[in-house]
Amino acid sequence: MCEANAYIVKDGKEDLYLENVDLLVPEGSRIYLRNLFGEQKTFEGRVREISLLKHKILLEETK
Amino acid sequence: MCEANAYIVKDGKEDLYLENVDLLVPEGSRIYLRNLFGEQKTFEGRVREISLLKHKILLEETK
Repeated sequence: MCEANAYIVKDGKEDLYLENVDLLVPEGSRIYLRNLFGEQKTFEGRVREISLLKHKILLEETK
Repeated sequence: MCEANAYIVKDGKEDLYLENVDLLVPEGSRIYLRNLFGEQKTFEGRVREISLLKHKILLEETK
């Protein structure tokens, strides 16, 4: 499977936000995420980095 | 492999921008992309949508 897990990066730590993310859509100051199971979340912040090989989506709150 | 191809969406069309993208890093008004082969590109614009199951990164120029 080729989905990735989304983490919130804060103070150098990565906290899991949503597993098995399929879809990511930036919407203004927010990021809409949906995973394989249809679970949806909207994060107030921005994408910091996405590494598909590491299966990692790193998010951070907007400063 | 779990990389995705990046396309530029314009006038309803999708033009291939970079294949086999591993890394995506938003940098202000630009998006830095790097693929499996170390090829790097910087796109002036924003991420419109990423679908990992479809292996698609859709980019669009900033209006």
